[in-house]
Amino acid sequence: MSSLLEQLIEAFRVLPGVGQKTAQRMAYHVLERERDGGRRLASALSEAVERVGHCTRCRDFSETEVCATCASAARDAHQLCAVESPADRLAIEQATGYRGLYFVLQGRLSPLDGIGPREIGLDRLAERLQEGEVQELIIATNPTVEGEATAHYLAQLARQHGVKPSRLAHGVPLGGELEYVDRGTLSHAFGSRSEMA
Amino acid sequence: MSSLLEQLIEAFRVLPGVGQKTAQRMAYHVLERERDGGRRLASALSEAVERVGHCTRCRDFSETEVCATCASAARDAHQLCAVESPADRLAIEQATGYRGLYFVLQGRLSPLDGIGPREIGLDRLAERLQEGEVQELIIATNPTVEGEATAHYLAQLARQHGVKPSRLAHGVPLGGELEYVDRGTLSHAFGSRSEMA
Repeated sequence: MSSLLEQLIEAFRVLPGVGQKTAQRMAYHVLERERDGGRRLASALSEAVERVGHCTRCRDFSETEVCATCASAARDAHQLCAVESPADRLAIEQATGYRGLYFVLQGRLSPLDGIGPREIGLDRLAERLQEGEVQELIIATNPTVEGEATAHYLAQLARQHGVKPSRLAHGVPLGGELEYVDRGTLSHAFGSRSEMA
Repeated sequence: MSSLLEQLIEAFRVLPGVGQKTAQRMAYHVLERERDGGRRLASALSEAVERVGHCTRCRDFSETEVCATCASAARDAHQLCAVESPADRLAIEQATGYRGLYFVLQGRLSPLDGIGPREIGLDRLAERLQEGEVQELIIATNPTVEGEATAHYLAQLARQHGVKPSRLAHGVPLGGELEYVDRGTLSHAFGSRSEMA
């Protein structure tokens, strides 16, 4: 059996971008200088992994049935912004002054991988649009091939329910991922979104 | 109170080289795709933080009173290699074919910071040298000002106990280009050139 230290190094490798060398540095750093921080991280991790689920309204991560954003009376329920992932949602929330609501697809249409409309919650989105409160669906999927296909599908869905679809302005570099775009660019693109033809 | 997700992001920042953005990516990655890995990491962390202490022989991290290396009959007890940190010990262990034992200082002499011989375990190292089994003390402290000062102190200590001190060779790194080597290193390498066979 491997030692606790070896197990810890191995366990760190589950994190994105962390290889053997970085995992070693992390393990030694925690043991040498940050035991309290390590304890906090361990408990935050196990709490979050067990208790963070998805908001029933927007499918974003949430520890409550309806997330704080969806439950907030201060947000504008006439605008709904569809994003692929919670990270994209956070990027928009941090970069722009958007005060509407979100819908997190948790993916994008990808028929070859068996990811169809139901897998990304479009049945629930359709119900949401049917409710009549949403006036604009801001489509903020990634500017990739699959993201664009998803955007077109979403625009169609919006029109079917009499909702105006809009898309983030070009200015977001093609082939890039929203999560990594700098704030200025993202904010600009968000501000000059245009109605989809 | 902040959400579990925010707490998790904050907790990740305890790791070396992890800022806000990377911490977000780690948290989302674990929640989206690696909940099992997250559970393993949480338990490995809390186990290690509580149970990993220091070997009473070499001061390296160990969950047992004497670490596996010190307890091994296959290691050569005539050679002892002094390093500043467990990470340095691991680097040497992984890069070289060294089969002797180690002594981990867990620091370096730094009188201005109140780190004297006792703080880096030199009383215990002296007892170890006194035992008479060690014939060579390989001094592998870092080539910094404080590391060099520590090396000189260690060499003196070794001689007092009739043990031969040795120091890692300094010079131009293999595969490096002379043009890019720093002046101190180049000057040292030039000064301690050796005759070619």
